[in-house]
Amino acid sequence: MVAEIIAIGDELLIGQIVNTNAAWLGGQLSGIGVQVKFMTTVGDEHEHIRTCLEVASKRAGMIIATGGLGPTHDDITKKVVADFFEAGPMQLDQKVLAHMRDLFQRRNIHMTRNNEAQALVPLRAKVLWNEMGTAPGLLFEKDGKYCAVLPGIPAEMKNIMRASLLPFLRERAGGTIIRHRMLKTYGIAESTLAEKLAPIAEIEQYGKLASLPGYHGVNLRVSVMGSSAEEVQRRLTAAAEIILARAGKYVYGFDEETIEEVIGRKLRERRETLAVAESCTGGLIANRLTNIPGSSDYFMRGYVTYSNEAKIELLGVPLASITQYGAVSEACAKAMAEGARMKSGTTYGLATTGIAGPSGGTPDKPVGLVWVALATPENVITRHIIFTNDRMINKERFSQLALGMLYQALLDEK
Amino acid sequence: MVAEIIAIGDELLIGQIVNTNAAWLGGQLSGIGVQVKFMTTVGDEHEHIRTCLEVASKRAGMIIATGGLGPTHDDITKKVVADFFEAGPMQLDQKVLAHMRDLFQRRNIHMTRNNEAQALVPLRAKVLWNEMGTAPGLLFEKDGKYCAVLPGIPAEMKNIMRASLLPFLRERAGGTIIRHRMLKTYGIAESTLAEKLAPIAEIEQYGKLASLPGYHGVNLRVSVMGSSAEEVQRRLTAAAEIILARAGKYVYGFDEETIEEVIGRKLRERRETLAVAESCTGGLIANRLTNIPGSSDYFMRGYVTYSNEAKIELLGVPLASITQYGAVSEACAKAMAEGARMKSGTTYGLATTGIAGPSGGTPDKPVGLVWVALATPENVITRHIIFTNDRMINKERFSQLALGMLYQALLDEK
Repeated sequence: MVAEIIAIGDELLIGQIVNTNAAWLGGQLSGIGVQVKFMTTVGDEHEHIRTCLEVASKRAGMIIATGGLGPTHDDITKKVVADFFEAGPMQLDQKVLAHMRDLFQRRNIHMTRNNEAQALVPLRAKVLWNEMGTAPGLLFEKDGKYCAVLPGIPAEMKNIMRASLLPFLRERAGGTIIRHRMLKTYGIAESTLAEKLAPIAEIEQYGKLASLPGYHGVNLRVSVMGSSAEEVQRRLTAAAEIILARAGKYVYGFDEETIEEVIGRKLRERRETLAVAESCTGGLIANRLTNIPGSSDYFMRGYVTYSNEAKIELLGVPLASITQYGAVSEACAKAMAEGARMKSGTTYGLATTGIAGPSGGTPDKPVGLVWVALATPENVITRHIIFTNDRMINKERFSQLALGMLYQALLDEK
Repeated sequence: MVAEIIAIGDELLIGQIVNTNAAWLGGQLSGIGVQVKFMTTVGDEHEHIRTCLEVASKRAGMIIATGGLGPTHDDITKKVVADFFEAGPMQLDQKVLAHMRDLFQRRNIHMTRNNEAQALVPLRAKVLWNEMGTAPGLLFEKDGKYCAVLPGIPAEMKNIMRASLLPFLRERAGGTIIRHRMLKTYGIAESTLAEKLAPIAEIEQYGKLASLPGYHGVNLRVSVMGSSAEEVQRRLTAAAEIILARAGKYVYGFDEETIEEVIGRKLRERRETLAVAESCTGGLIANRLTNIPGSSDYFMRGYVTYSNEAKIELLGVPLASITQYGAVSEACAKAMAEGARMKSGTTYGLATTGIAGPSGGTPDKPVGLVWVALATPENVITRHIIFTNDRMINKERFSQLALGMLYQALLDEK
């Protein structure tokens, strides 16, 4: 079964609201085997909505339209869809009206005549009960094509989907389901990763492979369609195994896992502890680590040493080393990592010093340069990379480089 | 001028990514008088993309397509659009190639043949320079219709829009423009704010008012439509003036401004400095402060004292005070703020200690409890609030409460 999503509302077109409904619907539908091939956004204009319905009804068996069911003059979705699906005259639905009266009473709000119009339901449309709000969802059918109309308010839309529409669609989806597996990589460029994964066809015999680059690394997504959950799972595993065989050393986690989560798990298992010393990342690494519940078990402290004085006083970086090599140097990163480790009495000390930008660069030390150092019980490892010009992106990339080094060490050691 | 936005990528259809690009583009385009009537999302399939181009070219003079310009096999946007716009054979653009080589060299990454294909530009397409990434934007034209193709990575897309495409479109627009003004508040509940702003009609005679609550406070957005920029600006100012007269003491900034940015400006003006000591916010406050370019002028250092030992050793919090009152207490917050200020020699010391959750709460000290303290040259101010159960939301709210206290102090003093 193929579905098309139509989001209705001027506020979407002028960018006042991000269309999160479409993404949620896409995820839910693909999960039960309904394929979404197109999504459209259109304003509150009769002709434009009608155009979208015409186009969509040619290429999809199921249309899901959201928004434009409110009580005000610009809410015209119900009328346009009812006309297009020749659903007959509007009739007052007494059950919907009673629910609406109840909701208003409970919220202690006066109900207006505008609201009553929300209880009008076209003769040949089916009500999709909206427990959470006043505007009912509606299901239309003509010549074997369906159109569901849902409120644009995310919580109400999701509630109706879960209660009525997903069960309805699950029966008709034809058994083809789609599942995804995400393999999350670090420390490798997208193109190099693609080379390592070749030939892609061997992976794609099981499912579709997508390469999704971001500031924290390249995510590899395998998507498999199939008729049974077991079959789909088997194919996902087969595809993931090929990827792991070819590029497993770059994979730190799966699906929603973050590298800070994986690191936390490993540190806890190993009963080891961590302190960080951050200059250019300015607290981002500590913030990421402490986003993980229970991180106080292994994360002891962070030093955000933005000034040279702080580096010297708190971490014992030698003044001479800053004078000779500068604060953005291998020597300084090393001293910071060692200082953090020694002063905190932790297993590891992780440090960053660099130039996040946009200013402060020199020909020798351009914006985007970062030195990272990791002090372990055995030694101190350092790395440097030059990234780009954007301060926020640099902070993210710097932090991921540092966490990647730590993750690597937790794999290598012992 | 009418524009249509086409977002390309399977990840959008299956809901793995929310289409924030379309909303941003819609906002930018409506701001310069370009009307967006439709937005479409389509997968990485040749025929489907072509269908979207056919439909869009009938109803818009300008198409903006995003995504599918990467170096891998599923990136087919360039080829499909070039075919549709009959843009001629691909040619290697030496300038783009050199830029790409430079980017790879700076990042110290091996460049593959896949990447070189990103420098192929159709004969009759114009390059829209992508300073931040490897895939250039492209501008196609046929029979007076335009199509711009941009990378899907938001930062690169925005950069190209600002540098090339918005100036190009501004010249050709000329319709009804929409402008927004955002007034950002802190420290007041949405309903209380609404009471202070009443009667809303007096504000809405100038433009539409929206109340947008978030973890950093309630944002008030005024939106005005008009035919001249001067008229629109006059009405925005009139509406903002009424809001400021009624609730100005809760407004810390406008539009894109963050409270950390405003604080930074005030500290720099006053030639004052800051150190932070964070327990439950785990580096988030330092991270937010150091997101501001030039923050090293006033932000000296941060202590992320997650363990009690760190609080005692680094900040001089008395062990007795932790034993008697616990680490989450007014006494501890106070000692942390004073310690941060004294040890750093800064004008201010700002401290947080609390229970971010999801576990670690007790009946006396539930999850969501935070104590914040601000040490100034004159005294130490403290506050505590109990928020909700979500760790990430709590960290954000805790950090905003702390920064709000500092902002308030920077207003009150002197």
